[in-house]
Amino acid sequence: MTEIGIGIIGGGYMGKAHAVAMSAVGAVFNTALRPRLEMICASSPASAEKYRVAYGFARATDSWQVLVNDPKVEAIVIASPQETHCDIAQAAFALGKPVFCEKPLGASLEQSRAMVAAAQGHTNMVGFNYIRTPASQFVRQLVAQGAIGDVTWFRGEHTEDFLADPDSPATWRTQGDANGTMGDLAPHMINGALALIGPIRAVMAEVEIVHTSRPGGSVTNDDHGQMMCRFANGAMGQMYFSRISHGRKMGYAYEITGTKGAIRFDQEDQNAIWLYTTDEPEATRGFRKILTGPAHPDYLPFCQGPGHGTGYQDQIIIEARDFLQAIETKTPVWPTFRDGMDVNQIIAAAMASNRTKTWVDVASL
Amino acid sequence: MTEIGIGIIGGGYMGKAHAVAMSAVGAVFNTALRPRLEMICASSPASAEKYRVAYGFARATDSWQVLVNDPKVEAIVIASPQETHCDIAQAAFALGKPVFCEKPLGASLEQSRAMVAAAQGHTNMVGFNYIRTPASQFVRQLVAQGAIGDVTWFRGEHTEDFLADPDSPATWRTQGDANGTMGDLAPHMINGALALIGPIRAVMAEVEIVHTSRPGGSVTNDDHGQMMCRFANGAMGQMYFSRISHGRKMGYAYEITGTKGAIRFDQEDQNAIWLYTTDEPEATRGFRKILTGPAHPDYLPFCQGPGHGTGYQDQIIIEARDFLQAIETKTPVWPTFRDGMDVNQIIAAAMASNRTKTWVDVASL
Amino acid sequence: MTEIGIGIIGGGYMGKAHAVAMSAVGAVFNTALRPRLEMICASSPASAEKYRVAYGFARATDSWQVLVNDPKVEAIVIASPQETHCDIAQAAFALGKPVFCEKPLGASLEQSRAMVAAAQGHTNMVGFNYIRTPASQFVRQLVAQGAIGDVTWFRGEHTEDFLADPDSPATWRTQGDANGTMGDLAPHMINGALALIGPIRAVMAEVEIVHTSRPGGSVTNDDHGQMMCRFANGAMGQMYFSRISHGRKMGYAYEITGTKGAIRFDQEDQNAIWLYTTDEPEATRGFRKILTGPAHPDYLPFCQGPGHGTGYQDQIIIEARDFLQAIETKTPVWPTFRDGMDVNQIIAAAMASNRTKTWVDVASL
Amino acid sequence: MTEIGIGIIGGGYMGKAHAVAMSAVGAVFNTALRPRLEMICASSPASAEKYRVAYGFARATDSWQVLVNDPKVEAIVIASPQETHCDIAQAAFALGKPVFCEKPLGASLEQSRAMVAAAQGHTNMVGFNYIRTPASQFVRQLVAQGAIGDVTWFRGEHTEDFLADPDSPATWRTQGDANGTMGDLAPHMINGALALIGPIRAVMAEVEIVHTSRPGGSVTNDDHGQMMCRFANGAMGQMYFSRISHGRKMGYAYEITGTKGAIRFDQEDQNAIWLYTTDEPEATRGFRKILTGPAHPDYLPFCQGPGHGTGYQDQIIIEARDFLQAIETKTPVWPTFRDGMDVNQIIAAAMASNRTKTWVDVASL
Ligand SMILES: NC(=O)C1=CN([C@@H]2O[C@H](COP(=O)(O)OP(=O)(O)OC[C@H]3O[C@@H](n4cnc5c(N)ncnc54)[C@H](O)[C@@H]3O)[C@@H](O)[C@H]2O)C=CC1
Ligand SMILES: NC(=O)C1=CN([C@@H]2O[C@H](COP(=O)(O)OP(=O)(O)OC[C@H]3O[C@@H](n4cnc5c(N)ncnc54)[C@H](O)[C@@H]3O)[C@@H](O)[C@H]2O)C=CC1
Ligand SMILES: NC(=O)C1=CN([C@@H]2O[C@H](COP(=O)(O)OP(=O)(O)OC[C@H]3O[C@@H](n4cnc5c(N)ncnc54)[C@H](O)[C@@H]3O)[C@@H](O)[C@H]2O)C=CC1
Ligand SMILES: NC(=O)C1=CN([C@@H]2O[C@H](COP(=O)(O)OP(=O)(O)OC[C@H]3O[C@@H](n4cnc5c(N)ncnc54)[C@H](O)[C@@H]3O)[C@@H](O)[C@H]2O)C=CC1
Repeated sequence: MTEIGIGIIGGGYMGKAHAVAMSAVGAVFNTALRPRLEMICASSPASAEKYRVAYGFARATDSWQVLVNDPKVEAIVIASPQETHCDIAQAAFALGKPVFCEKPLGASLEQSRAMVAAAQGHTNMVGFNYIRTPASQFVRQLVAQGAIGDVTWFRGEHTEDFLADPDSPATWRTQGDANGTMGDLAPHMINGALALIGPIRAVMAEVEIVHTSRPGGSVTNDDHGQMMCRFANGAMGQMYFSRISHGRKMGYAYEITGTKGAIRFDQEDQNAIWLYTTDEPEATRGFRKILTGPAHPDYLPFCQGPGHGTGYQDQIIIEARDFLQAIETKTPVWPTFRDGMDVNQIIAAAMASNRTKTWVDVASL
Repeated sequence: MTEIGIGIIGGGYMGKAHAVAMSAVGAVFNTALRPRLEMICASSPASAEKYRVAYGFARATDSWQVLVNDPKVEAIVIASPQETHCDIAQAAFALGKPVFCEKPLGASLEQSRAMVAAAQGHTNMVGFNYIRTPASQFVRQLVAQGAIGDVTWFRGEHTEDFLADPDSPATWRTQGDANGTMGDLAPHMINGALALIGPIRAVMAEVEIVHTSRPGGSVTNDDHGQMMCRFANGAMGQMYFSRISHGRKMGYAYEITGTKGAIRFDQEDQNAIWLYTTDEPEATRGFRKILTGPAHPDYLPFCQGPGHGTGYQDQIIIEARDFLQAIETKTPVWPTFRDGMDVNQIIAAAMASNRTKTWVDVASL
Repeated sequence: MTEIGIGIIGGGYMGKAHAVAMSAVGAVFNTALRPRLEMICASSPASAEKYRVAYGFARATDSWQVLVNDPKVEAIVIASPQETHCDIAQAAFALGKPVFCEKPLGASLEQSRAMVAAAQGHTNMVGFNYIRTPASQFVRQLVAQGAIGDVTWFRGEHTEDFLADPDSPATWRTQGDANGTMGDLAPHMINGALALIGPIRAVMAEVEIVHTSRPGGSVTNDDHGQMMCRFANGAMGQMYFSRISHGRKMGYAYEITGTKGAIRFDQEDQNAIWLYTTDEPEATRGFRKILTGPAHPDYLPFCQGPGHGTGYQDQIIIEARDFLQAIETKTPVWPTFRDGMDVNQIIAAAMASNRTKTWVDVASL
Repeated sequence: MTEIGIGIIGGGYMGKAHAVAMSAVGAVFNTALRPRLEMICASSPASAEKYRVAYGFARATDSWQVLVNDPKVEAIVIASPQETHCDIAQAAFALGKPVFCEKPLGASLEQSRAMVAAAQGHTNMVGFNYIRTPASQFVRQLVAQGAIGDVTWFRGEHTEDFLADPDSPATWRTQGDANGTMGDLAPHMINGALALIGPIRAVMAEVEIVHTSRPGGSVTNDDHGQMMCRFANGAMGQMYFSRISHGRKMGYAYEITGTKGAIRFDQEDQNAIWLYTTDEPEATRGFRKILTGPAHPDYLPFCQGPGHGTGYQDQIIIEARDFLQAIETKTPVWPTFRDGMDVNQIIAAAMASNRTKTWVDVASL
């Protein structure tokens, strides 16, 4: 059991989630490396100090450079806004330090490419947590093992409603492509699609601002977007992303149809997998609601009882385990920066398609 | 109470459904006109006679011309394959007889246009039954009344799995555009979209044969198709149609998001409407599962108890009531042939889009 | 194909349902006997005449004696209040006429016993429609075939909310044991329990009036009741019946656990059966949501497509088919008066248990 | 921020859960007291050492007396089998140390009473975690605030299937009342019933061993049990507990009906509350599926996004927060040992009722 000094940049939504994860991961997964909460960074000295106390870090700073360069910080978690990811990651890799970066990898495809280049030879991971639940990991296995045959159809969505009310004010969230729905929400489900089905060859998309002005100003980034896509393996697909989907709180949901069965999943009931197979006679066929349990990936360390359920925070603990393991074993653990870049490429293709109103080859970007 | 002689062409799936409906509709809805099962027509004398006995018709024939021309046949229900609809309807209208035609209206847009022209001045209806359930009628009212605000997003599907098994043999169902998924299944949901949201301005579609050969021969029509669409009122939308969706038996399902709420519906649980509104405080907001009952359109005549449920056959009884009422009052009852033609136009636009891989203006067809 | 003259007593909720069923049943099931709507009876000449016109009967009367004695009335459906069932049935059997009687059989166990005695040698059926759905018929087969092993546990409920509002006025429904929850709602589920699991040996019950006074007067019959029960095969069970269950519209629901699996059903989603078996490995076990279809009992005559669904009215059509078949074949079709009496016996035992606050042997009643 | 030395007795299922909780709780809840994992105790030196390393404790022991008496152990968590709870708690209280004890409080009512007596003046809590989820805490508030009016009916169950297979071997779990279904599973739901509805006045129960012999020996404790109960506020209720409920993995589920609405909950979908109220017009009434989020108790510290969900481990973190707060503020935090004792009293009454086959007054025990 060796300690490792962790530095986290950002103390908000995800900075906290990662701080908690680093506190808990050792006990949950009996990891070889044990995180020591070394330093936290936030925009101001006051907020950084507040987070330090709250989450139990040794030190605080308002400069990510200070954090990155600190010798006792041996691994870095980037949980600050998308625009900051690229610079921080490059600086950390320059020092040979392992980096876990929240999604989206970069604020643009260009940034993501630069980040992948910089990550060469260094431990790197990207924060696609939803695909790491016991349920979605198991679905990935099922599909890969051919449990539903060859995939013919995929439908994915990532829908939430935090900006569904037209009277919600304009903020930084409503400015800049990287904070729009395609930039901010789409990455999770695009990553999911790639992980579950495989590479996407071409997309045809529509992206739009529905509420162009909100109290406090005009809106410059997209409220929702949809796309049709063609996977490399020939499967056809459809996706939808929205921050204005009234009633949807964590609408990371997908349906996969194959030649021998089908699977349905909705993150709002994250411990249930719906599986349809054709093994039974017609009269007893139906979608089976499988509750996650010790028989599914990464569940048992959280609870010995099936159906007892994991939650959002547990996904981040799973990510922390993976990151520590990648560092310890010097072996990449999926999803890496390359996976993050692949997602940015699809998004770039979708944005291009929206402009040209034509199908766009992903490889052309 | 006046009797009216009914002639039905086709004694199969839908011919029977309409025969039962005509037997029951008087008692259910206390209609002014009371159907008399005058004549049934099928492909052969033997099958026609078999249906006559089974359903209780007075006479049988294997010639639709005989049926159409029979003076005691005062109203005609077309429940034969799509290719036959146009000729029969034209012949009936030439004699001034009311016609109810199963979906799709014609086997092509051209046929549908000819049928609408022929229908001028005569009672005409088309068989979109799914939009006539108590649930979907009520949803239509909710949307029209603004219960969920302005519609921003629509997703619809009509998915079944009767050809999901790649080893299902090639039959007449796997030949000819009118029997493919776009021709045969898509009409219901396209009609639903038009009824719930309004006219569609443009579509971008993909349609394909997944299993190009099946035991017994090659397949010439589409297994599934998808489209993105733009409604005249500005709403964005997505649809999917499939006969190879393992696990889906009656996947006529839609989601409608508006600026003030959302609605979800799935025909596989046809007596439930899911409504989300923002009237409650955040802590008690959620999709409400509303069970149909006497408070919803056309439910009470079937049952005094809410939640007791209507079924497939009841939809056809509702259609029969509408048809009789249209005849009696000489006032068109929705959906008419024009609605059927509108659906064919969208399908034609989708097929064109699939060929050109571009957005297609519906009006251009 | 032979005609048979049908007389229905009662033109309300169930009188109408049976009139519609008799109109439709021939076409649906291609029955050997074909109903002719001969005479309808209601409390007053005016209402009887109104129903005659609405449902399409040849004649009307306000005297059930006239109906029963009419030579053209060859089979009788009793759809009048529980207090009337016994006299009518006895009179009809005295003339050797077949009788279908709505549930509960008699207004008391004594009446039911008299009715069974009178029914000896004559065609007799009782109106437990919920057990006759395609779904519950199939569940019955599954249990009987041992699909879930030996039954260890049963939970049943029949809950509705038509009197849940304490401000709903006192009416005839709130007077008299036979109209209380135990008298009026419990019979369906008790019959279900007997059909699915087998005879009940002993019960321990609690029955009570929750809202003892309502606008318009005091209430003399029970709002809800519960019981624990022991089946003859050793299984343990629990039931609950209520007319004050807010939110429940047709809460005829049951759960059956066996040594090899389990089944769940809720009439509010009447076309779905939830089946859990242990054939699969742990990781893919789950309750399967099976949608009714042509593979299930009595579904196909209503629709060729699975998942398209049957509804409340269809249950009554199934009953009509059974009644006609029992008449034609002179062979009893389940459930007969004896089954109705068995239900009354359980209810009598429950009422006794409620008084004595002890377990009551059903055989002791 | 003050450190506090934590000692945990037991390193299995719950010992681990509490170790993880103590590692994470500071960062999650920004607690004033910060746990230091001081010592862990298990049955053997080897297992204790294994747990020490895995969970990150400073020291290990195989003697709970050593742990309890250690001066650096300032607060004690009992996560060892039920038979050990009483002795440990008494020893700890004798030293004035705060104790958190897993459910059930004692292995018998007598033990629980002794434990409550010993706890006088000391910080004490009992581990009913299911009532501490954001969902069930919110339900408790709703009921208390009268959101569904006066409660008329309660149904609760705690059902699992870990011994549903008759071929599962006999182990220590199948020996001794405290490890039977009434002793081991019932406490959670009985506590839930008391918390949600209020005190229970009398019970009528049935408890039984279904599989009296299993591979490896005979079974001496109950497989399932049911009871009818009467609450002090007059409400009627029904409960069921089982370890042989095929298909149920975490069947902690309840339904509460009131005079103005109803609530349904199932721990297998732990982030959803189903609420029915009568505020809307009939046509739009229905059970609302409310997803937990920042608007619900104790959710926000885990995640800023609604619908993102908490899991089993999070419940234990909430308990840890409560325990630390009770210690810090020297103010009891619900549920205390008294609540644990109340549960044991109901169980004792149920066992007595099962023996006598009569209603048993809870106060008589
Ligand atoms: N995986 C997931 O489920 C989620 C991922 N995210 C991602 O996590 C990242 C952070 O988002 P949130 O936590 O929601 O944001 P937040 O606004 O809650 O927190 C951002 C934090 O970054 C700090 N920060 C901002 N600029 C900084 C700078 N230049 N230097 C140092 N610190 C700086 C702020 O002080 C704050 O503590 C984003 O990339 C976002 O896309 C966000 C939410 C969920
Ligand atoms: N609204 C709905 O839910 C459904 C609508 N349909 C539509 O109903 C129509 C009939 O389809 P099904 O009933 O499924 O077909 P089917 O194959 O079950 O029955 C077709 C009937 O038409 C008769 N027929 C065929 N050619 C004929 C001709 N030239 N002259 C006279 N009779 C002829 C056949 O003898 C047969 O009785 C189609 O247009 C179909 O698209 C079908 C199924 C469901
Ligand atoms: N199987 C099921 O799902 C249901 C069964 N029922 C049963 O059906 C029976 C009728 O109930 P509803 O139709 O709800 O009642 P209702 O009040 O709607 O109709 C009762 C009918 O009986 C007639 N009637 C009353 N007394 C009569 C008399 N002495 N002679 C002739 N006619 C008389 C009335 O005029 C009226 O037409 C009851 O036994 C009831 O328990 C009722 C509802 C559902
Ligand atoms: N709140 C909840 O959800 C749950 C509560 N429990 C409760 O937690 C307690 C522990 O149960 P599990 O963790 O499932 O058991 P377990 O068998 O997984 O672990 C028991 C632990 O106690 C230790 N132990 C046994 N006897 C001991 C002794 N005399 N001295 C010191 N250590 C001893 C064992 O070495 C082992 O580490 C029980 O009271 C049980 O009822 C158990 C499971 C779930």
